[in-house]
Amino acid sequence: MEQQQQLPIKIVLDNWTAILSRTTGLINSLTDEELDQEVSPGRNTGTYLLGHITAVHDRMMPLLGLGAQQFPQLDDVFLTSPDKSGKTKPSTSELRAQWETVNQALTEAFGKLQPEEWLHKHTSVSDADFAKEPQRNRLNVLTSRTIHLASHYGQMLFLKKSK
Amino acid sequence: MEQQQQLPIKIVLDNWTAILSRTTGLINSLTDEELDQEVSPGRNTGTYLLGHITAVHDRMMPLLGLGAQQFPQLDDVFLTSPDKSGKTKPSTSELRAQWETVNQALTEAFGKLQPEEWLHKHTSVSDADFAKEPQRNRLNVLTSRTIHLASHYGQMLFLKKSK
Repeated sequence: MEQQQQLPIKIVLDNWTAILSRTTGLINSLTDEELDQEVSPGRNTGTYLLGHITAVHDRMMPLLGLGAQQFPQLDDVFLTSPDKSGKTKPSTSELRAQWETVNQALTEAFGKLQPEEWLHKHTSVSDADFAKEPQRNRLNVLTSRTIHLASHYGQMLFLKKSK
Repeated sequence: MEQQQQLPIKIVLDNWTAILSRTTGLINSLTDEELDQEVSPGRNTGTYLLGHITAVHDRMMPLLGLGAQQFPQLDDVFLTSPDKSGKTKPSTSELRAQWETVNQALTEAFGKLQPEEWLHKHTSVSDADFAKEPQRNRLNVLTSRTIHLASHYGQMLFLKKSK
């Protein structure tokens, strides 16, 4: 792949890295008590959203064909159940550590991918469908997960005390 | 540009279109009264955020070298001033119409761009800097504006009454 052709892939990756880094910075700037507040009255808590984005990012590993999910137990609590399900959540410090672990695994795996490998199919599309719709590739997953993260980042901003 | 090389550009564009369409759907589903609420206590109102994303999208036209800004008067109220500045806002129906107008102009202009033109420089980078940093192109602007929109979309979701 020529350098010019790699540019769009670099752009998507750089923007993913930027919003991921802003989100991690926000999470690290919040106390456990702040994280445990609802982002808006009657809405999800920051703790739930942290578990939710961790689970979604963890699942990107198998979806992108890069490895196994590390914390599949998060799915039940943070993906298929709502915040106030009564299900036992990991402690906030455990969740913070899992968020770091999951994103580190993604960053390492991304670092090993050649640019053209971003255009390979992701694992939840069949060969036949991918032949018809070649945009159903890894890069598309990364782009849609970037949007997903950004929308929750916008919500978690409300956990910061306003001045 | 070969079809394979166009794919990343199509993916970024499709994801922009998807979040834009979801946001417009959300705005259209809200009454003026709902839009005028704060998205979270003490935070921006939906009306302010609507003006804000309209102004940001309007400015994408000159930034991408695609045409003039249509509503430069929005900048002062929705970009450089905070929500409760006391500055006179357009009516909500006017804002709704401007949102549609601005995004229609973008969609039309995008439809006329060839895929490779997304790799051309945007207008706020110099030729010299662009030569050194070729990722400072139109596609990068679109990607970062997608993230910007997604973060405010996440916030505006709170204007929907929870069940």
